[in-house]
Amino acid sequence: MPLKKPHNGLQNGDGSHEKDSRHFGNGSQQQNTDLNDHEGEQNLPSVLEVSNDSPVVNGIGSSLANGSLNLHSTVKRKLDGEKDYVFDKRLRYSVRQNESNCRFRDIVVRKEDGFTHILLSSQTSDNNALTPEIMKEVRRALCNASADDSKLLLLSAVGSVFCSGLDYSYLIGRLSNDRRKESTRIAEAIRDFVKAFIQFKKPIVVAINGPALGLGASILPLCDIVWASEKAWFQTPYATIRLTPAGCSSYTFPQILGVALANEMLFCGRKLTAQEACSRGLVSQVFWPTTFSQEVMLRVKEMASCSAVVLEESKCLVRSFLKSGLEDVNEKECQMLKQLWSSSKGLDSLFSYLQDKIYEV
Amino acid sequence: MPLKKPHNGLQNGDGSHEKDSRHFGNGSQQQNTDLNDHEGEQNLPSVLEVSNDSPVVNGIGSSLANGSLNLHSTVKRKLDGEKDYVFDKRLRYSVRQNESNCRFRDIVVRKEDGFTHILLSSQTSDNNALTPEIMKEVRRALCNASADDSKLLLLSAVGSVFCSGLDYSYLIGRLSNDRRKESTRIAEAIRDFVKAFIQFKKPIVVAINGPALGLGASILPLCDIVWASEKAWFQTPYATIRLTPAGCSSYTFPQILGVALANEMLFCGRKLTAQEACSRGLVSQVFWPTTFSQEVMLRVKEMASCSAVVLEESKCLVRSFLKSGLEDVNEKECQMLKQLWSSSKGLDSLFSYLQDKIYEV
Amino acid sequence: MPLKKPHNGLQNGDGSHEKDSRHFGNGSQQQNTDLNDHEGEQNLPSVLEVSNDSPVVNGIGSSLANGSLNLHSTVKRKLDGEKDYVFDKRLRYSVRQNESNCRFRDIVVRKEDGFTHILLSSQTSDNNALTPEIMKEVRRALCNASADDSKLLLLSAVGSVFCSGLDYSYLIGRLSNDRRKESTRIAEAIRDFVKAFIQFKKPIVVAINGPALGLGASILPLCDIVWASEKAWFQTPYATIRLTPAGCSSYTFPQILGVALANEMLFCGRKLTAQEACSRGLVSQVFWPTTFSQEVMLRVKEMASCSAVVLEESKCLVRSFLKSGLEDVNEKECQMLKQLWSSSKGLDSLFSYLQDKIYEV
Repeated sequence: MPLKKPHNGLQNGDGSHEKDSRHFGNGSQQQNTDLNDHEGEQNLPSVLEVSNDSPVVNGIGSSLANGSLNLHSTVKRKLDGEKDYVFDKRLRYSVRQNESNCRFRDIVVRKEDGFTHILLSSQTSDNNALTPEIMKEVRRALCNASADDSKLLLLSAVGSVFCSGLDYSYLIGRLSNDRRKESTRIAEAIRDFVKAFIQFKKPIVVAINGPALGLGASILPLCDIVWASEKAWFQTPYATIRLTPAGCSSYTFPQILGVALANEMLFCGRKLTAQEACSRGLVSQVFWPTTFSQEVMLRVKEMASCSAVVLEESKCLVRSFLKSGLEDVNEKECQMLKQLWSSSKGLDSLFSYLQDKIYEV
Repeated sequence: MPLKKPHNGLQNGDGSHEKDSRHFGNGSQQQNTDLNDHEGEQNLPSVLEVSNDSPVVNGIGSSLANGSLNLHSTVKRKLDGEKDYVFDKRLRYSVRQNESNCRFRDIVVRKEDGFTHILLSSQTSDNNALTPEIMKEVRRALCNASADDSKLLLLSAVGSVFCSGLDYSYLIGRLSNDRRKESTRIAEAIRDFVKAFIQFKKPIVVAINGPALGLGASILPLCDIVWASEKAWFQTPYATIRLTPAGCSSYTFPQILGVALANEMLFCGRKLTAQEACSRGLVSQVFWPTTFSQEVMLRVKEMASCSAVVLEESKCLVRSFLKSGLEDVNEKECQMLKQLWSSSKGLDSLFSYLQDKIYEV
Repeated sequence: MPLKKPHNGLQNGDGSHEKDSRHFGNGSQQQNTDLNDHEGEQNLPSVLEVSNDSPVVNGIGSSLANGSLNLHSTVKRKLDGEKDYVFDKRLRYSVRQNESNCRFRDIVVRKEDGFTHILLSSQTSDNNALTPEIMKEVRRALCNASADDSKLLLLSAVGSVFCSGLDYSYLIGRLSNDRRKESTRIAEAIRDFVKAFIQFKKPIVVAINGPALGLGASILPLCDIVWASEKAWFQTPYATIRLTPAGCSSYTFPQILGVALANEMLFCGRKLTAQEACSRGLVSQVFWPTTFSQEVMLRVKEMASCSAVVLEESKCLVRSFLKSGLEDVNEKECQMLKQLWSSSKGLDSLFSYLQDKIYEV
């Protein structure tokens, strides 16, 4: 049962995530509260510093203009360029912290006409890497979107990287402090994050503007339509960094790509270009980077003009045969990660080794 | 139990479909009657105005020579060109109506050496669109072919369009008269049509000469080998025309194409060229239009030289793991369509809107 | 329960396979004995006439330099070229038959750093065709590898052909002697061979240097990573040679390639080039023939540097949803083959007809 505490966005922004998580323990059932939340958000779009056309929509495509394949430098350049913007955003947060409306710190949520737009825009990790806190924000946004009147969800990212997967520096830091407790906490955060995608009933469109790594790539088959910029690429080097697969990729990747390619990705860290991912079924279609965001918006708006019932029932038909299987896979995968993290001794050195590796292109 | 009434082809030709449907309610069990039917047909090939080489075999490939992508004009030109032929055919029907042998109006069935050839050649709908009556004819032909000594089935179409799916003008007409009764009748006709493909035990080869839309594309994964002319293309814009998926496409499309592309087809009406459909697994192989029919015939005849037991047992092995699942999917999909058709208010306007849309290329 | 008899490699080499098969009836449980076997083997690498770099590793790629598409002549040329080598090997066998260490006649097994390398190198059949005796050798080697400290398995072939599937001349010979008994024996040998792949817990990497036909192609989806030389090609003309599918291909091929292409392979003997097999998911990646063996070795060694636990648990996650299904399929397929072989009358003539056919390119 949800606690009757005021929904103050900054409770998430300032770290009080633990308490809030109870609201999401049972999936996406909190319609009233969440709808209220959303109305608050809807009334104050400018608070998020996301105007209707430029900064966010550009976020999908614009910073991809630089063709550099060195992720580190690309990202640094981007962060330099956006430093003022970030600072500005932070400032506004602190200014408005009593207004209960800027409830997300590492994602941006925009309520559009007929759909909800979630943008990964992490302030607390590099390259949109995922921490338990960020995953909880996404879950909250999914929960809100499942209960409001939007017909579908658009997921994209601000910056030149879509999502670099789990935040390994965070992982190393936490696991070296208290391996037992933290391995459980982080594995459960992943499980709940993935479960939120499995259980989401409206169509999810993902727009991949750049690299999608690890968990950031694994969740794509849990979404319904995957549009990618030519600059996107995909990699899930789990075995290389001494992890077992997550995000249901141990099931969905062989299903979609065939065992041969799926295992090459999971075991050998094989990287797929956008075109390869498209020709093998992970991606629906690839677009030219300069017009990517417009192409996506055009299509999403057209989809949002469809009947809500048809969209949801169609997704239900497509997913019904997979759902329970995926939930089992998710449980097993996270159980295995917890075991690995709580037992393995050389974890820290491995992580540091592979944190370098993963960004080599 | 089948009624002991004489099988007169014109009963189907003149609209008395309701009574006849009882014969097919339980699948394809009516061996004796159907075999008798077939023998009659076999003895009178010329009645169907289908000589052994030119008009029908050409039907697969010849009229594709015009490369126009405007379906409407292509089809009209074709119909103009074949007007005399059509008229002639009708005439012969009326002449021979007491001979009980021209039992099909909208399809042509030819018994070849080792295989049965069914050609969609609709006289009562445009572009080989499907009505409950036409679907029943196909089911009858499948039933006959399952019981006779043919080793496999070849399905193709006369004209430049393979099959444009459900006949929407028919749908609108019927649903606007009696939404409740007609929604049930039409949904059940689709269910039984699709079920006949799921349950057919001999290999089905499909030769796709031109566009395959909606249900005409959805049933392809229920067939065993799909050969396509370079001029073929595939589209299942269910959500766009406010329908939920049919023909088991909610299951088979994600299975074959991956969720990302399958959903783009089902939700956004993404069109696949023959080459795309081939590279993604919906089509076995693509052939040059001018030699398409010969290539198909060559291969089908070679297949028909195999052992009947091996063909049927091989198909049994390949399909056994899918069969019961597909039957469930089919039931669910048709249940959903019935609900949509019996409840939705703006159906007519949607249909008219989309009937235009679907033929835009 | 395993018999306590000494493990002498030449028992397999000299034909006493029947007794030995009991050791493998229950999968790969015989850790102690097998480990002992393996240690013996490890100590005497030179006995197998396989030096660390040249003959075997070259075996993967070198003889592919001749681009001939005529399999017969290619193979004959190869055998001529290697005649001395073969003779030499045989000689060594007879010389060392009391040393209990050259336990394989038609395969070569090398224990490398972190992985086991099995090479098909049949002396008793042409083109690495499979007989029950050769399949038993592979099972023994898999059993050993499952129990020792290797982290993964590399499977490749000596010569220009990877594996030409069942040895049809062997089949014809045996079945014409005692159809009833031999059909059971051979079908069970296939069943146990395929089962050994299904149950193998460590990752299996296959390096396909040339043609992989019939059972030699069917088992690839039971392996985890499939790397192919540009010279490889794939064909499973089961129906053409009047057989039903084996090696779980009736399940795995439709799963990976889609029903349309899978059936074209199973029913019509459609041949896939390495590139086609790769783009459709049967193969992970294609390499240039001249550097194929090096590329494979490089990658296998890198994989072998991963944690054994992660490799095995990852494979377990990927395979867990398939395992029981695959075992059922395998049983059904072999049951069907047994029926065909014990009943069909014209089997011999068909076999002789198709033995020619299968090698036409």
